Amino acid sequence: MAKSPELEHPVQTFGWAARDTSGVLSPFKFSRRATGDHDVTFKILYCGICHTDLHNIKNDWGFATYPLVPGHELVGIVTEVGGKVHKFKIGDKVGVGCMVGSCNSCDSCANDLENYCPKMIQTYTGIYHDGTPTQGGYSDIMVANEQFVIRWPENLPLDAGAPLLCAGITTYSPLKYFGLDKPGMHVGVVGLGGLGHVAVKFAKAFGAKVTVVSTSLSKKDEAIKQLGADSFLVSRDPNQMQIAVGTMDGIIDTVSATHPILPLINLLNTNGKLVMVGAPAKPFELQVFPLILGRKMLAGSMIGGMKETQEMIDFAAKHNITADVEVISMDYVNTAMERLAKADVRYRFVIDIGNTLKSA
Amino acid sequence: MAKSPELEHPVQTFGWAARDTSGVLSPFKFSRRATGDHDVTFKILYCGICHTDLHNIKNDWGFATYPLVPGHELVGIVTEVGGKVHKFKIGDKVGVGCMVGSCNSCDSCANDLENYCPKMIQTYTGIYHDGTPTQGGYSDIMVANEQFVIRWPENLPLDAGAPLLCAGITTYSPLKYFGLDKPGMHVGVVGLGGLGHVAVKFAKAFGAKVTVVSTSLSKKDEAIKQLGADSFLVSRDPNQMQIAVGTMDGIIDTVSATHPILPLINLLNTNGKLVMVGAPAKPFELQVFPLILGRKMLAGSMIGGMKETQEMIDFAAKHNITADVEVISMDYVNTAMERLAKADVRYRFVIDIGNTLKSA
Repeated sequence: MAKSPELEHPVQTFGWAARDTSGVLSPFKFSRRATGDHDVTFKILYCGICHTDLHNIKNDWGFATYPLVPGHELVGIVTEVGGKVHKFKIGDKVGVGCMVGSCNSCDSCANDLENYCPKMIQTYTGIYHDGTPTQGGYSDIMVANEQFVIRWPENLPLDAGAPLLCAGITTYSPLKYFGLDKPGMHVGVVGLGGLGHVAVKFAKAFGAKVTVVSTSLSKKDEAIKQLGADSFLVSRDPNQMQIAVGTMDGIIDTVSATHPILPLINLLNTNGKLVMVGAPAKPFELQVFPLILGRKMLAGSMIGGMKETQEMIDFAAKHNITADVEVISMDYVNTAMERLAKADVRYRFVIDIGNTLKSA
Repeated sequence: MAKSPELEHPVQTFGWAARDTSGVLSPFKFSRRATGDHDVTFKILYCGICHTDLHNIKNDWGFATYPLVPGHELVGIVTEVGGKVHKFKIGDKVGVGCMVGSCNSCDSCANDLENYCPKMIQTYTGIYHDGTPTQGGYSDIMVANEQFVIRWPENLPLDAGAPLLCAGITTYSPLKYFGLDKPGMHVGVVGLGGLGHVAVKFAKAFGAKVTVVSTSLSKKDEAIKQLGADSFLVSRDPNQMQIAVGTMDGIIDTVSATHPILPLINLLNTNGKLVMVGAPAKPFELQVFPLILGRKMLAGSMIGGMKETQEMIDFAAKHNITADVEVISMDYVNTAMERLAKADVRYRFVIDIGNTLKSA
């Protein structure tokens, strides 16, 4: 018989877990493994709330096993390192993002693309190499293999920087891979939420001209004045969309709700690239002619490899890029989830684990 | 009142034209412009029959104006050159492909991508700069601006080489642009028709491993023994398709009939590229997750620019690449169209214009 979560491993851990598809989170005692030779153990101080967490606690995608401790944007301070760990020492600031393991033998792993490894182990909802379920960052202690631990730059705030571990790399990586990181490029960002607002900041830091594409005018001021976007397009206004036809080199589409794709493809110029980083659950209709007529492409991208994640965090520190966050206490998390479902946050909730997660 | 086709221009020309959406071709007297300063006039010797011709004579895509002389794979011998033409002289072998003009002022034109110029003028179904309709290569004489005329390599057969002007560049260009032209790449070719069989030859010449993906086993022998493909997959056999999942760096999809796309995306490895060069008229359903999970892309590609078309023809000559053709007489063309509609040709019909197109 499998051991209870509390007795499974030696390190007593406390967090908040969803217990069923209601998605309601409540205090949960579980355990983590002892620090292995290649492991880093750290006290979690902050953890971002990603939209993915909201999907997973309700099991929208079918990956959930309960109890489920969400959180894959976690940062903290190292408390113990394994005997073979060389990159980290006690007291270091560190972070863990969306994954904690991979096979280390496939082509993707060999090319620093652990994120595309077929055996990639997610930070939560995964099964670790030892056969036990992984649990995320809405908790007080993390143990992770150093390969999946990020060095935290001294000048990067822990709270506002935490969301970069998912939202940051998810947008940084496609901007780089699809060649949208060049000065003078015109980049569209569809959807101004947790991912979108960080995409705007990275694209601007790369020197691109950035246009935010949103369903309504309501976010125009913040897009331009706060985030530094150059222009703003209301996707529901056919006139505005018509004027912008053929003007963009690439688009990062962060919207996971079903939405029309053809108007976005039409915004692209020759060789333009539409990159989906949000994942609509339902298939959408695609016409081929508009792709053929301009050698356009539609692509997907999912987070990034560990090497690139470190590069992204270092780039963010150098360019003073953080997420815009609302720091909350642990016991506010269920309310935060309700607000997140209504997109009522500018732009990312971050849980102050260090100060507010109290064991009963 | 517009002049009749016969009197519109000074150069009396004879060809075969479709008169209405029945698509039946019959003899047709029309005219072409006198050789302008930058023009090359040539006697047409051969013209390939592209599947596009079949669509256009029946106005499947809505571009047709009748009478319509099809043909955009035409080759012949120069009979006259304009005063400012330097690239060609009387007696030269030349070819014209899918286009005869562009704006020469947009970004696409500036980047040798006249094929993506919004004002690109098609060899037939277009309106030329002088306001008169363009007419294609099922005719005895062609007049074209030298920018859109290809130098024909001495050792490249005119008849079997003619289809390269469309089928060749349509497959060569995406293999190059999407980086599938490297030794060791694994390239899938979907559909073994006029485009597909040439795609196999180019991909092999680039040093790729080539797998043909076809709906039935019937073409396996010819794919492997005649065309040099390395392997063959029956797309309707789920077991074969399952075994090949995640093995291909790129796929050139030449099928214009509606067909399932997800099984093809599944054949791609991480960063794999599915390039559509056939154009299904109906939209198809696309799921985003499979693209995201492997940073895969779906793209379109349409012929190629003039510089690249010349490069392709020179490459074909160097590597002895031609289409496999069935040379027919002009008066067989309606039968050929019927056979083409049933895919009953290995792999391209070419009309022997020089020997069989007789003015009444």
